[in-house]
Amino acid sequence: MISLGLVGLGKIARDQHLPAIARSADFTLCAVASRNARADGVPAYPDLDALLAREQAVEAVVLCQPPQVRHAAARAAMAAGRHVFLEKPPGATLSEVEDLVEAAGRAGVTLFASWHSRFAAGVEPARSWLAGRRIEGITIEWKEDVRQWHPGQDWIWQPGGLGVFDPGINALSILTRLLPGTIRLEDAELQFPANRQAPIAARLQMRVANGTPVEAEFDWRQTGRQSWNITIHTDAGALLLADGGNSLFVEGAAQALPGESEYPAMYDHFAALIAERRSDVDASPLRLVADAFLIGRRSFTEAFHD
Amino acid sequence: MISLGLVGLGKIARDQHLPAIARSADFTLCAVASRNARADGVPAYPDLDALLAREQAVEAVVLCQPPQVRHAAARAAMAAGRHVFLEKPPGATLSEVEDLVEAAGRAGVTLFASWHSRFAAGVEPARSWLAGRRIEGITIEWKEDVRQWHPGQDWIWQPGGLGVFDPGINALSILTRLLPGTIRLEDAELQFPANRQAPIAARLQMRVANGTPVEAEFDWRQTGRQSWNITIHTDAGALLLADGGNSLFVEGAAQALPGESEYPAMYDHFAALIAERRSDVDASPLRLVADAFLIGRRSFTEAFHD
Repeated sequence: MISLGLVGLGKIARDQHLPAIARSADFTLCAVASRNARADGVPAYPDLDALLAREQAVEAVVLCQPPQVRHAAARAAMAAGRHVFLEKPPGATLSEVEDLVEAAGRAGVTLFASWHSRFAAGVEPARSWLAGRRIEGITIEWKEDVRQWHPGQDWIWQPGGLGVFDPGINALSILTRLLPGTIRLEDAELQFPANRQAPIAARLQMRVANGTPVEAEFDWRQTGRQSWNITIHTDAGALLLADGGNSLFVEGAAQALPGESEYPAMYDHFAALIAERRSDVDASPLRLVADAFLIGRRSFTEAFHD
Repeated sequence: MISLGLVGLGKIARDQHLPAIARSADFTLCAVASRNARADGVPAYPDLDALLAREQAVEAVVLCQPPQVRHAAARAAMAAGRHVFLEKPPGATLSEVEDLVEAAGRAGVTLFASWHSRFAAGVEPARSWLAGRRIEGITIEWKEDVRQWHPGQDWIWQPGGLGVFDPGINALSILTRLLPGTIRLEDAELQFPANRQAPIAARLQMRVANGTPVEAEFDWRQTGRQSWNITIHTDAGALLLADGGNSLFVEGAAQALPGESEYPAMYDHFAALIAERRSDVDASPLRLVADAFLIGRRSFTEAFHD
């Protein structure tokens, strides 16, 4: 068993990480670090530095804080010789992700920049199904109600908080996993609430390496039914990855899949990376987001109040 | 001699590329492509496709168009087996630069993503001087009058045109050459004219891999004296790279340098790359710009009219 520390006891840690760690055959939670929360049965420290200093047996840490503060924590943990599991996105900027890759190499530890949606049950079956097909077009619709999924999470609206790209990057993480080669951004439109520094809606036009077009629509103002769908038109019919990758339809017919297991699958992967002394850092989803901010046409829409 | 085609007969092509090609011992200009301009003594084509179709002997092309249209041209030239020299920046987005790297590999041709300021006379002497020193802080001041240097260049204000980062990226290209390891962006402020999609001023806070701070100030509203300065404080005194890298001072004393020769040096480098069957593509300056757009705090200032 690998002794694990967890940093940042927010919503994602409680909803996903703690249950997945409890089920894991590879990891034992030995300590947490959080400004003001505790987890049952393990020592709690006010911050990562205190945890690292006192818990010499902790071999790996999982970082669940907002992206704006994760870089310094990852650097400190790796400098102390610990393996690091980063929640998504792997950084606030691309340059800090690159810096972490170099730091992991110097420290000789495993760095896992996770993209949980890539571990959704439908993704690998979809990837296999697509491998032999000619892809003619892709549409992505990622529309949810920010008030439901990110209540009061102010950091998400700050510079570096990504706004609607915080969920949208999940779609991009699946897209970049499904297809080989670089997917490039061609055009983008970003809508900012008049009182916010992060977009509430976005439209992207991308192309697969062979020229196939990809259209994506992200919107955080969706009430009622929520949509996390990727539709891929091929010479053998349409494939639909729905529910954020957890449901798969071919020509409208539901495909049998294993149960939902994104986070348990990620911990299995992290254990395998440590055993193989490898890292897994793919910044391409964040690169597409940075590209959208770089060339996107900005417009302003009504103010958003939580 | 390598037969060369040039695409995009704008200001940079006439001011820099044509004179450098005329002096080159490695390249002969054989054709140009331009919507409405011609060069003396060589065939002119309305576009790159016509040039590629009719000029089978052209082994390499230099692309001097605005960045928004360069990707398709580079792809077409490489698919036709020609080596490519890209003006800076190497693309409108990071993902399209990555796509070009893959395409160059498939085609087995040389791709040179040029950063002309890296070839300024003071840069390599500065790099050598810094190699043995402890660096304590870096400040960059890149302030020029956009009306003087980019008169009527509307593309520079469009999404993807970079605004004040069009000159500022030259400073970043020098910075990333001078120092080893990844330089990461920590904070940025971008000022947009109320009527434009690109910033007219920016402040960046960066850090070198070892933690040394870098402060950069870019401004396009500088009248009178223009400033393109990088000051590096070390344990052995201050080094100043001035005039965009073409003057070098150590503790205030001017250092002897060879004459200005950015573009001739770049053509020498391009010829060497072709001979060695290598590419040279470093997207790190553009990555810092994309990071600044990604996490930068945006504010608005008075409208800009050319």
